[in-house]
Amino acid sequence: MSNKWVIAGGYFAVPGADRPVLQGYMTVEDDIIVSISEEAPAPEEGVERMDGSRLLFLPGLVNTHGHAAMSLLRGYGDDMVLQTWLQEKMWPMEAKFTGEDVYRGTALSILEMLKGGTTTFLDMYDHMDRVAEAAEESGIRAVLMRGAIGLCPEEVQREKLAEAVAFARNWHGRAEGRLTAMMSPHSPYTCPPAFIEKFVQAAHDLDLPMHTHMSETRAEVEQNVTEYGLRPVAHLEKLGMFTRPSLVAHGVHLTDEEIGILARHRVGVSHNPGSNLKLASGIARVPELLKAGVPVSLGTDGAASNNNLDMFEEMRLAALIHKGVSGDPTAVPAAEALKMATEYGAASLFLERVGRLAPGMKADFIAIDIDQPHLLPHSDLLSHAVYSASAKDVAHVWVDGKQLVKNGECLTLDEERIRREAQEAFEGLLNR
Amino acid sequence: MSNKWVIAGGYFAVPGADRPVLQGYMTVEDDIIVSISEEAPAPEEGVERMDGSRLLFLPGLVNTHGHAAMSLLRGYGDDMVLQTWLQEKMWPMEAKFTGEDVYRGTALSILEMLKGGTTTFLDMYDHMDRVAEAAEESGIRAVLMRGAIGLCPEEVQREKLAEAVAFARNWHGRAEGRLTAMMSPHSPYTCPPAFIEKFVQAAHDLDLPMHTHMSETRAEVEQNVTEYGLRPVAHLEKLGMFTRPSLVAHGVHLTDEEIGILARHRVGVSHNPGSNLKLASGIARVPELLKAGVPVSLGTDGAASNNNLDMFEEMRLAALIHKGVSGDPTAVPAAEALKMATEYGAASLFLERVGRLAPGMKADFIAIDIDQPHLLPHSDLLSHAVYSASAKDVAHVWVDGKQLVKNGECLTLDEERIRREAQEAFEGLLNR
Repeated sequence: MSNKWVIAGGYFAVPGADRPVLQGYMTVEDDIIVSISEEAPAPEEGVERMDGSRLLFLPGLVNTHGHAAMSLLRGYGDDMVLQTWLQEKMWPMEAKFTGEDVYRGTALSILEMLKGGTTTFLDMYDHMDRVAEAAEESGIRAVLMRGAIGLCPEEVQREKLAEAVAFARNWHGRAEGRLTAMMSPHSPYTCPPAFIEKFVQAAHDLDLPMHTHMSETRAEVEQNVTEYGLRPVAHLEKLGMFTRPSLVAHGVHLTDEEIGILARHRVGVSHNPGSNLKLASGIARVPELLKAGVPVSLGTDGAASNNNLDMFEEMRLAALIHKGVSGDPTAVPAAEALKMATEYGAASLFLERVGRLAPGMKADFIAIDIDQPHLLPHSDLLSHAVYSASAKDVAHVWVDGKQLVKNGECLTLDEERIRREAQEAFEGLLNR
Repeated sequence: MSNKWVIAGGYFAVPGADRPVLQGYMTVEDDIIVSISEEAPAPEEGVERMDGSRLLFLPGLVNTHGHAAMSLLRGYGDDMVLQTWLQEKMWPMEAKFTGEDVYRGTALSILEMLKGGTTTFLDMYDHMDRVAEAAEESGIRAVLMRGAIGLCPEEVQREKLAEAVAFARNWHGRAEGRLTAMMSPHSPYTCPPAFIEKFVQAAHDLDLPMHTHMSETRAEVEQNVTEYGLRPVAHLEKLGMFTRPSLVAHGVHLTDEEIGILARHRVGVSHNPGSNLKLASGIARVPELLKAGVPVSLGTDGAASNNNLDMFEEMRLAALIHKGVSGDPTAVPAAEALKMATEYGAASLFLERVGRLAPGMKADFIAIDIDQPHLLPHSDLLSHAVYSASAKDVAHVWVDGKQLVKNGECLTLDEERIRREAQEAFEGLLNR
């Protein structure tokens, strides 16, 4: 028997519409939104009603770039030059990560993300079986991939590629379809060209999209030109990456020509404003990318360089910094920032039925308690969601029609255990 | 009989010290912090203990520039060019503000600020008696002033000055000293030179500091040069403003020479990163100002251009954007951002005993619940406070030793009434 229910009298964000916030009714059946309208649907026997007044419903937020397990290193190194941070802080600790550490860090991040309204996240890391396990348990939607650094002997390269392929074969489509896979060489500056080409071939064989870090820092772009005579976009195009549906993370340092190539191939860019600012990588050309038709979505990156996984903060940063830097107060308006965090995010992860509140879409959505001082008066709720709300304002979260967070409490995860085990894992890393 | 009590086993932020977070004990007697130490104080009869474990204590946050009543216009106009926003949205609505509207908007803002850990705020607006009334009722600390625009007949100018003087005489030092006053011509571009000089004279007569908006936009700087042959800093110096202790808001567009003048006179700058970004005013030269020894503090500005009053967000913006823009990841480190929001803020408002957790200081402090996913692991709590926390993480707030917020609930204000009345006031403004 199907499970059908109605949210009555809620406010629903539909940023593409004439009126971007609709007050009315949304009907959900199993994992699908079946209707959304101002008029009340005819009463049906056995169809429960939930009072939606005082709640603003948004599509679940989609975090399109991150390394969830790195939450174990949150606050372990800040305010440092990138190379020092990596070489003295991140890499020595990450080298000690066991599968159990990855599981614990990922569980901590999923807990934070779900409670904060993120219903889909991309994760590129190691020990991915443990990441998939944590994601499956939680009920969240996830796009997962073994991120492979190719600066190693060919034999190790082969092992990593085999691992990435095995992971994708094993997990793609699992957990009622909530888990999908991509193929992910780490970046042009950490992967020899032939290694990237092997990933492209594997992505063709498996019919999967691709993801990589690209043009995060000025130095890596210069290095690419020195080593290969090409900037990263042309380099990846030459290696065939864009013959696959692709998403690149960061894309901070791009020329007009490169933006043109990305637009032509419909390559998505995961904009990570918090991480880019904190690591002083620079400020991506988001208004130009959007204008060129590039799908720009939002990512938190790992918590070690953010330092939280609050997608409301990324929306707000995206809406604010490009105004300040360009001098144009109309750059990245609120509705566009919300789309970047939802609709464009889902499209960038090739999830066709995610990212909007509309009939036929997956029932991945969240509710914010709008009866709070910082969300009053109720002048423009979409503006409030982007410019004033935070992760902590999320009251309820549903994925695939199943409620995962209720009144701020996660229903699927043992929060107390996850918090304790994350702290213990961090102390273990320090002490061994 | 005095009221003495001890917080036991808490984490205390002392950003100037060798170890910027001290775990131990803080003793409070009436309105004063009497001791803070790693060792437990000797037990005393009648001295109660509060369990401070799982709590990070910070000095109360100090918001050094704003217009509290403008929360009634939150979300009423976003993503617009400044002049359109002012002329079509803000000014027509503000012209309708009654004293009652100002009271309701201010109460909404104070509620938001207190719950979010702000214990002191500066307010420059109209109907200031009603602002003072709202502040006094709440228990918050406030630095208040009638902000006077001088683009009006001389007779009206005289009335405004008289009003500013009367307000300062009436309220300075009231509410057990929690309310103080400053003298505030609105800005060089809205006040003729002679009008500013009269405020300077009044500030001398009353022995009060001065506050004004300055160099927020490039256009106003150019206008100043055209009209008076001087950039705003030299203009205000010439008018004698800096013969008084002074704080200027924004200071976005400054030359090296202007920074030098501000430093020489110890003029404080209230940095308002959220508002400056949203209105596309530009990015203040904060690293240069700090390097020159200018006291740089943080302000939210009004909620119509922010759009919340979350000082954690302003701290984070200050710590992030100057890294991203300068390319230096060591710019504005976490401890400096926290000082801007506390110690430097109090100094900028000429409040000598506010802004630090130390013996002899006023007992204005807040506590954050650190046992949450986004604040784990407990690697560096000061980093977490700046890079990961938000207003909603504040559990408890004390001002002058009196608890105003407990477990997130405001003890002094009727939240339900304030929320309802703010919504009604906004609807009233729309309909008349």
